[in-house]
Amino acid sequence: MATVTNSPWKHLLLDALQTNAHLKQSSFFQLATVGCNGKPANRTVVFRGFHEGSQKIEIYTDSRSHKVDDLKRCPYGEICWYFTDTWEQFRINGKIEMIDSFNADPLKLHLREKAWFASSLKSRMQYLGCDPGRPYIVSETPNSYRLEPTDGPVDTFCLLVLDPEQVDYLNLKGNERVVFRVNPDNPESHEWIVEKINP
Amino acid sequence: MATVTNSPWKHLLLDALQTNAHLKQSSFFQLATVGCNGKPANRTVVFRGFHEGSQKIEIYTDSRSHKVDDLKRCPYGEICWYFTDTWEQFRINGKIEMIDSFNADPLKLHLREKAWFASSLKSRMQYLGCDPGRPYIVSETPNSYRLEPTDGPVDTFCLLVLDPEQVDYLNLKGNERVVFRVNPDNPESHEWIVEKINP
Repeated sequence: MATVTNSPWKHLLLDALQTNAHLKQSSFFQLATVGCNGKPANRTVVFRGFHEGSQKIEIYTDSRSHKVDDLKRCPYGEICWYFTDTWEQFRINGKIEMIDSFNADPLKLHLREKAWFASSLKSRMQYLGCDPGRPYIVSETPNSYRLEPTDGPVDTFCLLVLDPEQVDYLNLKGNERVVFRVNPDNPESHEWIVEKINP
Repeated sequence: MATVTNSPWKHLLLDALQTNAHLKQSSFFQLATVGCNGKPANRTVVFRGFHEGSQKIEIYTDSRSHKVDDLKRCPYGEICWYFTDTWEQFRINGKIEMIDSFNADPLKLHLREKAWFASSLKSRMQYLGCDPGRPYIVSETPNSYRLEPTDGPVDTFCLLVLDPEQVDYLNLKGNERVVFRVNPDNPESHEWIVEKINP
């Protein structure tokens, strides 16, 4: 067991991202939440990068999606990120902050705007679509969206930021498993406790 | 919205399995549970087939793993199964039955035994390893396992059987999403309510 600073797991994740970069799916992972019924929920989402160069992980979502309701009730998530070429798995859990159009902090609204413009125009268009998860009604299908490239974020665009508290790293090729935990005695220190565990 | 019997989602899943069969990862999915701390947990597991030809999904696990503790507290799971070649996602949730060595039903113990012998000898050996998730101690590493091909299941071998209650199917190529739900008015009937929803 050792204690280190500077997100010791992040370089493992960056290495995995680089080695698996030729696979489109390497930027997808599964995000688990606790549903409003108290049961688990799980879906594939896209990795949108690290938040402002930190260790925090960005995800974009539609504020009308179920995961937003889940997170209002229980603001925790666990990412399961499996890299198919290198047989590495990262299980990353932590609290998720939601930054939507109602956020009162101008700095956070600015980061949300930055995220919006970092998406392709095609991705942005999705937030103008029908309420996801609601019954499909042909007559409701919007057929004349207008969204200019310079238009700012629409109300349904929501930035999620997961702040990792624990990363469970498994390497199936090397049959190794290491857990990284934020030091509970000093959570603000960015100090991580590193422990090798049985796979 | 329509009502049908005979697991209408199962043929979609079988098609996806067949079309993606050339990819090793097509038999892996992510299983979310609610952890003992009330927060979500998520990990990659292997699809072991349908239970006795039914619609129920089999997973094998070590009875010492955290997911078993999670399921004792909250016996529900949600599978997220993403097929990378066909861009199809199946989110399958339901109650999970655990069949371990303490099960009192001889029929269930027989099914557990069948599952054990359906695994490769190499897979079976894993259940003789050190307690998964516990600190790794070099001196504890067993170096002289003995397991004969005819030896029955060891105590740590646990069969999980997920009985689907809802399947949320998303086809990203066709931009289509359909939800299949067991008829809540008649859950034993194997009657499914099928509804097209917004992606």
